[in-house]
Amino acid sequence: MISVSEALAAVLDLGAPVEVEHVPLDQADGRVLAQDVAATRDQPPFSASAMDGYAVATADVTEGDRFTVIGEAAAGHRFERTIGSGEAVRIFTGAPLPGGGVRVIIQEDVTREDDAITVGGKLGAGHHVRPAGGDFKAGDVLSAPRRLSPSDVALLASMNVPFVPVRRHPVVAIIATGDELVSAGGTPRDDQIIASNSLGLAAMFRRAGATARVLPIAKDTPSSLKMDLSLAEGADLLVTIGGASVGDHDIVAEVAESMGLERQFYKVAMRPGKPLMAGWIGGMAMIGLPGNPVSSMVCGEVFIRPLLDKYLGLPSGPRARIELPLTEPLEANSQREHYMRAVVENGTVRAFARQDSSLLTVLAQANALIVRPPGDPARNVGEPVQVIAL
Amino acid sequence: MISVSEALAAVLDLGAPVEVEHVPLDQADGRVLAQDVAATRDQPPFSASAMDGYAVATADVTEGDRFTVIGEAAAGHRFERTIGSGEAVRIFTGAPLPGGGVRVIIQEDVTREDDAITVGGKLGAGHHVRPAGGDFKAGDVLSAPRRLSPSDVALLASMNVPFVPVRRHPVVAIIATGDELVSAGGTPRDDQIIASNSLGLAAMFRRAGATARVLPIAKDTPSSLKMDLSLAEGADLLVTIGGASVGDHDIVAEVAESMGLERQFYKVAMRPGKPLMAGWIGGMAMIGLPGNPVSSMVCGEVFIRPLLDKYLGLPSGPRARIELPLTEPLEANSQREHYMRAVVENGTVRAFARQDSSLLTVLAQANALIVRPPGDPARNVGEPVQVIAL
Repeated sequence: MISVSEALAAVLDLGAPVEVEHVPLDQADGRVLAQDVAATRDQPPFSASAMDGYAVATADVTEGDRFTVIGEAAAGHRFERTIGSGEAVRIFTGAPLPGGGVRVIIQEDVTREDDAITVGGKLGAGHHVRPAGGDFKAGDVLSAPRRLSPSDVALLASMNVPFVPVRRHPVVAIIATGDELVSAGGTPRDDQIIASNSLGLAAMFRRAGATARVLPIAKDTPSSLKMDLSLAEGADLLVTIGGASVGDHDIVAEVAESMGLERQFYKVAMRPGKPLMAGWIGGMAMIGLPGNPVSSMVCGEVFIRPLLDKYLGLPSGPRARIELPLTEPLEANSQREHYMRAVVENGTVRAFARQDSSLLTVLAQANALIVRPPGDPARNVGEPVQVIAL
Repeated sequence: MISVSEALAAVLDLGAPVEVEHVPLDQADGRVLAQDVAATRDQPPFSASAMDGYAVATADVTEGDRFTVIGEAAAGHRFERTIGSGEAVRIFTGAPLPGGGVRVIIQEDVTREDDAITVGGKLGAGHHVRPAGGDFKAGDVLSAPRRLSPSDVALLASMNVPFVPVRRHPVVAIIATGDELVSAGGTPRDDQIIASNSLGLAAMFRRAGATARVLPIAKDTPSSLKMDLSLAEGADLLVTIGGASVGDHDIVAEVAESMGLERQFYKVAMRPGKPLMAGWIGGMAMIGLPGNPVSSMVCGEVFIRPLLDKYLGLPSGPRARIELPLTEPLEANSQREHYMRAVVENGTVRAFARQDSSLLTVLAQANALIVRPPGDPARNVGEPVQVIAL
């Protein structure tokens, strides 16, 4: 058996950043920026008023000062002349500050009669001017790699970047294997169950930025599995579920090897998820996950999500962990790294009592995994443990 | 001016849960479950082996016991006879436990010669049997409302639920207003800027479960705005950006009122985002957001995301807050509730020095908002503050 970190290193060796494509900005949210993008202009492109009020040519304004209003500047409508001493321009939020303008007196701080304004007694100190380039300047960059957020999309718009270089979606083909499996909506025999992992993993991979292709369930026969493997062609990564152990009916490794699989390992010292396989088959990376529903989902979180980050050009490594105190004690761990289904609430964490790797009801209630190192001793209430958010 | 909580209550009054639709399970991730869904079968549907090994008819097994192997049970292949005393059935993980079976002895714990197995000395105590219905029973429900996760999708599959009742996507039409605006990719005049808020808000709303329709930029003329308002027809919610203040060029309220807007309020005691409008226009809910980029995005987080939760039938109310200690001091707050752009790291939070509502570069770096109540006094390093995650 190898450790989780050795297994993860081997998994990450399978991947490399995929190609760059350009997408319209309105489709860029959640995509991974692949190249630094530079602003094509200053923002604001001109000194602008931050308030509705009056622009004047002096910073030195006191109660009783009077100005003559000589025109108006609105957002999108520059006032083309220059403000002189004793003059003011009616100005609205976002409008370019006219030439000569130094300060904006907000409208609540003046009284206006016809074309004259008089400064009142409650004048604040602010100039209410946003300097040109105060947000960013032409040439300033948004740096890659970066998973784009709605705020990033707004920023790229204001930088006038209509098309964005992002990594294309890595393509993951998913094959569930086993004579016991029937697709949801089908009618299982009394010794069969419904295939669940493939749809759960597909959803997980899509959230992480992949295109997931769920292939037909493969029977436990070489011909069925070979047909499915041929359907996977062209994917960046093939993920098989089940059949990766060493039982007589676990034929994934055998068939894949007959098709040229270079296998990297078999067993990982972790719980759930001991049987795990990784290698290459016909130029395509392949990972064989265990068939227990919770095992396959946990291995997806622990191994495949970091690999997808690598395909997307993001920093890739073990999932981020935080430390939280326990609200219920834990028994001593075995010599396998244990990923316990758990609930984080109010800054604390507790593991579910039932940790069998077949229990999807427990996984669906979990919002976190507690990571127990091999040989971790029993832990009391209040002791900190390592937690991965789901 | 009204408080943020009064404004939120008024905003939430605009919405009600939208209709239910049924989507295929492979499209259900992230959707909001609208009705309780019941399992159509037990899981597992039979007592099943948790390991590869040998099923026997007694729990009482000790070193040296011998059994005769009478057949095999594999996943998807039930062994149809009953196990008798002194007999064993070769069994694989996930296979139905044959009749009479009580316990599975894992294969590492026996030695096999031809059709006989002998129990070794390191026998563990486990029975390695997953009882029928141990995960869930027919009729057990996944309760609505609930935003479905990848694990939920796997669970629904194993419940054999191929179509899932979810709320349809609420439709949000977005209109940016202002003569100063040009769409990304366009060529602005020297007194114009690029429209950014509409694309940022559209991304935010889509993440929250909405369908976002970004309509053409409306000029500051009644005819342009009226045309856009007519294009919004059929949406559940219309969101306008800009023009919601009381300046001479802020025509949104005026035009919308001429088209039947029942306006609910004007000004909220918050920063950023003071000018805010909410009401009804022709049977469609309408919210007018301020035009400053950061103001509109923050108002989207504070007001519109809770409203989208309500459309989706989820519990709706103020955004969840956590308390985190400051790593940098804060000055006293004004009488407006302040949503400060901030960074959460290592369980602490700090506000950015620059909080002007025009700075998208600052918003893009932020991963949280610090919420300062009206009149909040100055805060020192280490003091806890309320934080909303972005």
